[in-house]
Amino acid sequence: MSLPEILNKLFAHIDGNHNKYIETLAEAVSIKSISAHPKHRDECQRMIDWTQYKLETLGIVCEQVNIGMQSLPDNSTLKLPNVLLGVTKNFDPKKKTVVVYGHLDVQPAEYSDGWETEPFKLTLRDGKLYGRGASDDKGPIIAWMNAIEAYHNIGTELPINLKFVLEAMEESGSLGLNKMLISRKDWFDDVDYICITDTAWLGNEQPCISHGLRGLSYFRIEVECASKDLHSGVFGGVIHEALTDLIHLMSQLVDCNGKILIPGIYDDVEPITPNENEIYEKITFDVDAFHKSLGTPGKLLYDTKIALLQHRWRFPCLSLHGIEGAFHESGQKTVIPKKVIGKFSIRTVPNQSTEKIEKLVVDYINQKFKEWGSPNKMKCFMSHGAKPFNENPFHENYLAATKAIKHVYNLEPDIIRGGSTVPVTLYFQEVSGRNVLLLPLGCSDDGAHSQNEKINLRNFFDGSKVLASYIYEVSQIE
Amino acid sequence: MSLPEILNKLFAHIDGNHNKYIETLAEAVSIKSISAHPKHRDECQRMIDWTQYKLETLGIVCEQVNIGMQSLPDNSTLKLPNVLLGVTKNFDPKKKTVVVYGHLDVQPAEYSDGWETEPFKLTLRDGKLYGRGASDDKGPIIAWMNAIEAYHNIGTELPINLKFVLEAMEESGSLGLNKMLISRKDWFDDVDYICITDTAWLGNEQPCISHGLRGLSYFRIEVECASKDLHSGVFGGVIHEALTDLIHLMSQLVDCNGKILIPGIYDDVEPITPNENEIYEKITFDVDAFHKSLGTPGKLLYDTKIALLQHRWRFPCLSLHGIEGAFHESGQKTVIPKKVIGKFSIRTVPNQSTEKIEKLVVDYINQKFKEWGSPNKMKCFMSHGAKPFNENPFHENYLAATKAIKHVYNLEPDIIRGGSTVPVTLYFQEVSGRNVLLLPLGCSDDGAHSQNEKINLRNFFDGSKVLASYIYEVSQIE
Repeated sequence: MSLPEILNKLFAHIDGNHNKYIETLAEAVSIKSISAHPKHRDECQRMIDWTQYKLETLGIVCEQVNIGMQSLPDNSTLKLPNVLLGVTKNFDPKKKTVVVYGHLDVQPAEYSDGWETEPFKLTLRDGKLYGRGASDDKGPIIAWMNAIEAYHNIGTELPINLKFVLEAMEESGSLGLNKMLISRKDWFDDVDYICITDTAWLGNEQPCISHGLRGLSYFRIEVECASKDLHSGVFGGVIHEALTDLIHLMSQLVDCNGKILIPGIYDDVEPITPNENEIYEKITFDVDAFHKSLGTPGKLLYDTKIALLQHRWRFPCLSLHGIEGAFHESGQKTVIPKKVIGKFSIRTVPNQSTEKIEKLVVDYINQKFKEWGSPNKMKCFMSHGAKPFNENPFHENYLAATKAIKHVYNLEPDIIRGGSTVPVTLYFQEVSGRNVLLLPLGCSDDGAHSQNEKINLRNFFDGSKVLASYIYEVSQIE
Repeated sequence: MSLPEILNKLFAHIDGNHNKYIETLAEAVSIKSISAHPKHRDECQRMIDWTQYKLETLGIVCEQVNIGMQSLPDNSTLKLPNVLLGVTKNFDPKKKTVVVYGHLDVQPAEYSDGWETEPFKLTLRDGKLYGRGASDDKGPIIAWMNAIEAYHNIGTELPINLKFVLEAMEESGSLGLNKMLISRKDWFDDVDYICITDTAWLGNEQPCISHGLRGLSYFRIEVECASKDLHSGVFGGVIHEALTDLIHLMSQLVDCNGKILIPGIYDDVEPITPNENEIYEKITFDVDAFHKSLGTPGKLLYDTKIALLQHRWRFPCLSLHGIEGAFHESGQKTVIPKKVIGKFSIRTVPNQSTEKIEKLVVDYINQKFKEWGSPNKMKCFMSHGAKPFNENPFHENYLAATKAIKHVYNLEPDIIRGGSTVPVTLYFQEVSGRNVLLLPLGCSDDGAHSQNEKINLRNFFDGSKVLASYIYEVSQIE
């Protein structure tokens, strides 16, 4: 397939401006927009302001939306950073319109956490740009700027309308975003597609597009046996201990092979479709490298590529996370805790319903507690429920992205899913009713929430080309 | 039984000096001898010095023994407070000799913890002296001083020799004490009996003498599934999770009714002797008040006095304490912890052997893990083992204490045991080979390790009389 002439020009322009892109990313990385830290809240807002300035120079009309206050654990309140909305100037209703979502805040980072470079000073080493936010998610947002600027600089008008929703609270639960989106629902009336550039490839070589994520149902089991913590020497042997009850209940949830023991839990899981295994078979995934990266001392639950990917993406799983209220420090303490709270969650998949999962789990735990026979107070409930995200990967929005990737990498992207839960995918799906595309630019080893976060030069520059191509391919959709 | 003339005089003297005793206790309480806090270490040593001064004015020849350094968690070291040894002047080999043990350090306390008075300012309210250490264990030590002073002031020579072992690290594991006692083993050659005034009555009205304590075998189960904590969305569903394994193993230890499920664990428990239930029947113990004080929402494991006391004192029990390495905070986190450590302990009783208990538990957990079938790394071991303490309550030392209590309270003390583990009881039993008496002066509601610790005026003054009587009764032993 020969490259359309316009893409040749755009790619040549992008290839001639590497240093400028790096400088822009360095500026963005230097702003410590850590949303988790109240003391960095000004930096979050500064990052919004900086981005507004950059977008405006590219012909994007911007608006900052005040989304209210955050309640802190100490009962004080703190203003949330504004959400930045943007629309390309000279909005043309005859063109297709894409909403771009990204986030400008970052995870906490300190040199002393084990970074090899200063986290807020972008550093080039061996073809990789190290710095907090380089991959998650400042780099991809700057790749959008690069793509738009390339159109301007080759003297071509953008062939589609772009709208932006950029927030600075994503790493802290996207506080306030969904409410704002709902209140601005009509802003999506003239939108055709959504594009989210905020996840990563499955591996480090093969470009990917993602069309599904698992949901999350988070549960608490609370058991109470006394009005105060008790000394196990003085009182051990005469009371039904809350932790004994809780450990029993938590032991009834999943077996050694990861099978969830709650009756009916698998009933609504989408059956494997006739040609589904072929899709997985085509995906680039190295089982041995994956196993090695986890550092698990023994076998994994599955040893084939298809089974591993399906159980990470399209089958539910249950993980026990821990217990609040029990002794958790190092050393030893002889306590009978008065009240303990077990935490576990189920990753849900289509077509499981959050409401049904909640009922199945709570009924099961209540039944098990009845059979156990303890007279203690017990309560099981779902503290958080987010639905799975699933999108049609054969939709024209996905096909445009597939073509865009082929133009740049000269190969078909893997159509993947993800196992984790990104609530914004659902927010956009529900508020807009449009197809939502997850178009990741970075690699799985970018270390998004870890030390030494980086984006490869290749992914940054070729990612800018992918977005320029995607803009072109969307414009070609009939 | 009419009171011997000497006791009449001693009691009259004690009754005439209440204010002086309160002043002395106030001085002692004002010294913040918190052994857990390195910053208060000087105060611990000051408490030793203060006590030496007081004992010397009472004719006790004192010696401070350097017991070396403490290693702190940050790898620094800190000098331990000296142990104070004392011997009555003009030691007479023809008289009986009693070693008195007590401790001069206290638990941490802050007004902001929920105290109603300043914890280090002794405060009299409603017949109770509030202050940290008032009952545990400064009050009882000052009661000894009061008893000795009473003998002096009525012009009578002490009819027995007294030796003192007073430490200031009891609340921090009696660091260095046992080693020192062993190195001074010959110091016990001329000793007849040991008397420890450092526990409490079973209730708040009935005086008690205690002759038994349970032992403690503390276990850890460590399970490891990965080289780093994993995101449950990204990795849930494909690995054997360490916490699933651990919760399963911990669920195999004890049933809902407190029965330990480890085969053989009860084999060596001393059978109930023919007249044992009668002993328990005589003890003053209010089942309803006990139940209410715990604040348990449902039934206790037993509902009769005999069963409750026996299961607190003379039967073993197993308590789960908590898990290290899992998520323990409030809120929610979707983590698969890489390594988790379960903690539980068994309170042991005569004639259980610590070595056999360790083998039974470790073999059982290893077997259960094999049956479970997880490929993860698992290790179960005993991190701490202390034997149960048991003493002959019909020994002349106990009979002397019984008579002493009758002189003061005009009733028979209850001969009780305790459920917790006080290692110094075993240290003295083993190093001296002598009968060890636990002679508590305070009430069960004194709040030894809680907010608003107190000693009742009655217990403080009558306790001083009990000790004066005990000195007399020991002198009468043939």
